[in-house]
Amino acid sequence: MSSTTLLIQCADRPGLIYLITGIIYRHKLNIISNSEFVEHTLDYFFMRTEFSGTFDEGQFIEDLKTALPPDAQIRLSIPRKRNICILVTREYHCLSDLLLRHSFQELDANIRCVISNHQNLEDLTRKFDIPYHYVPHEQRTREDHEAELLQLIAPCQPEFLVLAKYMRILSPDFIHRFPNRIINIHHSFLPAFVGASPYAQAYERGVKIIGATAHFVNANLDEGPIIAQSVIPVAHTHHAKEMAQAGRDVEKIVLARSLKLVLSDRVFVYNNRTVIFD
Amino acid sequence: MSSTTLLIQCADRPGLIYLITGIIYRHKLNIISNSEFVEHTLDYFFMRTEFSGTFDEGQFIEDLKTALPPDAQIRLSIPRKRNICILVTREYHCLSDLLLRHSFQELDANIRCVISNHQNLEDLTRKFDIPYHYVPHEQRTREDHEAELLQLIAPCQPEFLVLAKYMRILSPDFIHRFPNRIINIHHSFLPAFVGASPYAQAYERGVKIIGATAHFVNANLDEGPIIAQSVIPVAHTHHAKEMAQAGRDVEKIVLARSLKLVLSDRVFVYNNRTVIFD
Amino acid sequence: MSSTTLLIQCADRPGLIYLITGIIYRHKLNIISNSEFVEHTLDYFFMRTEFSGTFDEGQFIEDLKTALPPDAQIRLSIPRKRNICILVTREYHCLSDLLLRHSFQELDANIRCVISNHQNLEDLTRKFDIPYHYVPHEQRTREDHEAELLQLIAPCQPEFLVLAKYMRILSPDFIHRFPNRIINIHHSFLPAFVGASPYAQAYERGVKIIGATAHFVNANLDEGPIIAQSVIPVAHTHHAKEMAQAGRDVEKIVLARSLKLVLSDRVFVYNNRTVIFD
Amino acid sequence: MSSTTLLIQCADRPGLIYLITGIIYRHKLNIISNSEFVEHTLDYFFMRTEFSGTFDEGQFIEDLKTALPPDAQIRLSIPRKRNICILVTREYHCLSDLLLRHSFQELDANIRCVISNHQNLEDLTRKFDIPYHYVPHEQRTREDHEAELLQLIAPCQPEFLVLAKYMRILSPDFIHRFPNRIINIHHSFLPAFVGASPYAQAYERGVKIIGATAHFVNANLDEGPIIAQSVIPVAHTHHAKEMAQAGRDVEKIVLARSLKLVLSDRVFVYNNRTVIFD
Repeated sequence: MSSTTLLIQCADRPGLIYLITGIIYRHKLNIISNSEFVEHTLDYFFMRTEFSGTFDEGQFIEDLKTALPPDAQIRLSIPRKRNICILVTREYHCLSDLLLRHSFQELDANIRCVISNHQNLEDLTRKFDIPYHYVPHEQRTREDHEAELLQLIAPCQPEFLVLAKYMRILSPDFIHRFPNRIINIHHSFLPAFVGASPYAQAYERGVKIIGATAHFVNANLDEGPIIAQSVIPVAHTHHAKEMAQAGRDVEKIVLARSLKLVLSDRVFVYNNRTVIFD
Repeated sequence: MSSTTLLIQCADRPGLIYLITGIIYRHKLNIISNSEFVEHTLDYFFMRTEFSGTFDEGQFIEDLKTALPPDAQIRLSIPRKRNICILVTREYHCLSDLLLRHSFQELDANIRCVISNHQNLEDLTRKFDIPYHYVPHEQRTREDHEAELLQLIAPCQPEFLVLAKYMRILSPDFIHRFPNRIINIHHSFLPAFVGASPYAQAYERGVKIIGATAHFVNANLDEGPIIAQSVIPVAHTHHAKEMAQAGRDVEKIVLARSLKLVLSDRVFVYNNRTVIFD
Repeated sequence: MSSTTLLIQCADRPGLIYLITGIIYRHKLNIISNSEFVEHTLDYFFMRTEFSGTFDEGQFIEDLKTALPPDAQIRLSIPRKRNICILVTREYHCLSDLLLRHSFQELDANIRCVISNHQNLEDLTRKFDIPYHYVPHEQRTREDHEAELLQLIAPCQPEFLVLAKYMRILSPDFIHRFPNRIINIHHSFLPAFVGASPYAQAYERGVKIIGATAHFVNANLDEGPIIAQSVIPVAHTHHAKEMAQAGRDVEKIVLARSLKLVLSDRVFVYNNRTVIFD
Repeated sequence: MSSTTLLIQCADRPGLIYLITGIIYRHKLNIISNSEFVEHTLDYFFMRTEFSGTFDEGQFIEDLKTALPPDAQIRLSIPRKRNICILVTREYHCLSDLLLRHSFQELDANIRCVISNHQNLEDLTRKFDIPYHYVPHEQRTREDHEAELLQLIAPCQPEFLVLAKYMRILSPDFIHRFPNRIINIHHSFLPAFVGASPYAQAYERGVKIIGATAHFVNANLDEGPIIAQSVIPVAHTHHAKEMAQAGRDVEKIVLARSLKLVLSDRVFVYNNRTVIFD
């Protein structure tokens, strides 16, 4: 049975759920699951509804627009494989985890290509019949490098870019082309240890727990809206290298989980935070 | 601002949310938070709505009854301190945790009394000005013992009984007087290690994680609907005694958490399972 | 720098550490790390020592044997890739996780072959240049089926067999050929939900946490010594299918972790329990 | 059976374990448990040995000093209740948790007094027959305030000061009097959210996990050696206030755990990090 997901966010006011479910009811649609949240500090309303049934999409959207406040953001999501592009540097664990899920139909996405500034993951990627683009960054400007990235990305028409341990900083200009559409995995429990070498920082500080954070990328590095985080305990026996090894398993699971949430339309973004209906 | 909680469970059918939120809207009530769940294997619907506003409670219930299917269970919960009675045996950690939360206004309940088959927790209980009843079980029948318990419990008019490490088995007859109103903390990750001495069993089996389970008590020991569970890692260095020590912190937190869920009307029970809107 | 690991287990008595480290010292070896544990209920001693330096292995063992009680089990482990064989049925996630770690040199093992009673994982396995043997079990006796397994396993000379979601029960006769050398991943938090369909059982029981257990296989199904366990929270929204999906990530991580512990000589077995120096 | 704990830390060199266990053996002492760790980046050695038996303590220490390098720090710890003083501000949960454990003989310490800059926890403290000193900080200098604290602390001869949610900053001069002897609970997963209002910061940042950190206090606020950390998940439904509520249970457990580690001589400090033999 195919289902449709309706996502609404707007200023809160009395009667919104009644209004929206009324329109769903009058279009003879059957709600499968429904979730709402009101951010009371901002009086802001979020609703996610999965429903089944056939309907006149144009009229449905029209009815919602007429009924809801003009600021309302309304999205209808028909189940489909979204296009994604994956950017990596040298580490295999996040990329391979996504390639495998993709290969076994567990990712609601088409991996259109993998792009890297190194060559070592090409063999792996090609095993799964995914195009791999090697775009070295040496001896060229960031502008030039990103221009080539964009040229390779454009024909893929990706809904999301996934930075699966891509270790280069993207320019604000690049990022602004994909607002809330770039997902990064950062190898620390943000906001602890922003920036480079978080495991070295974690060792230096002597923490007893390390973590990983999947987040949307915005102009300020490591400061975008957090989608998912997870942690594991470490001890004095872990040097930065052992922390990095232990951290990899957390990183790949957190990235895959966040991507699943995003691809199943469970993530709203507002005010640099996420609302997640899981 | 005072709020009211509406809890509905009934067979699912199209339009239920629309119907219910319509009645809420027409009574000019303002929804603060709303949660629904449909158990699709049973086509069964659950909804919890917190709303604010003044209203004619009789008419409101009447309107809901008229609109909803006859099997619908409708509960209106006005914020209030519920009466509870606590039963304990000899261990202090769960009882003291509840006494402290109660004393500092963190428990939406009045602890009307503590009843024990031992005397060692009397001093502690009296420090917090809570009546303590010592009801020894030696040299008497279970029937006789429980009759005395009931006599002490009756004037307290408790909505819930809390078994805060009460180590005696209650008779089915006793339990049937409080359907889904007795909350027990079991010192294992149920259904592992039902019955007596779960930590000894856990040591024997060589598990690497232990846990605690808060559940409603039904006639079959340790088999009632689970409200909350939590775990902690253990190692070969933990004997049953160290497991028990480590487990106590989990037990008291899980019991307090489950009680908070129950007292804030977030727990539905059906088919020996719970639906929890947290 | 290459290091050697010495593993000793024997009845406890005063002076054992002094005795053993004395022999290490006299052979001019340098201890890198040292761990001991005494199981006081049994007065049984475990010690694991990593040391560096060149030495006369025969004389070293001889000196240890002379000094230690006759029941002492002494193992010297020189770092090397151990041969392993992997048995699978239809699920890809545990197998692929091991294949990837193997491919990127993160597993101290040679995967000599993958054997399955189904064909669907052959493509995946061959991508990584590992032999795949399809051994169907239909219309033949268990005896006959296992005879073919053994014939395929024998030339690989595996130190360990890894059951990476192998869903068939092995006969006691088969198991006895590999004492404490078969590692299984069970998709529940043992001893909860032994046997088939643990996720269906977990849904039925309404648990709030699910888990996975890696253990050595002995004659009694699901009752061998536990190596590693891990858990994740679930909610009323998880049916058996969603539990299974969520559980897969735990299963693969727990299996990989347990294999890493075993391959780095950190696991002792005694009395159906493990002592793990992590 | 009474046991003694020997703690040694010194520059590493070959044969240390042999040397130390030899002295233990020659004094006819029986090792109950033994743990070592070498920090290889610094070539620094840590050893903790619990042993039983009667011995000439002066000669034993003398033998160790003669054998070990001159920089070696040698501590002998005879089991005893250590004196501690607790400083609090207004929150009850950490204090009450320690008072209860103390009252039921689960803390290897004598709580000599509780000192606060507020009065609201006096009733609670006195229930457990512990002296409570109210030392207001208003309209006086920090110097003056701390002088009064020190005057109250001095006669208690505490081995450790426990800051159980003491919300005032202590001067470097005060701190230097108790090197690695002040234990603080910080209500965040350090180094995330140093300073004031960590839960407000956590809400603002939109994190999905919050935590608590117990650490020794040194001159730089929130930057001392970490003893223990723990975390719990949060969601978009948690405002700073709900995070604070949820966080309290983590804070009290982490503080109690860290205190237990310290009081059982399991914590070494070096280079602003801890080595913990748990």
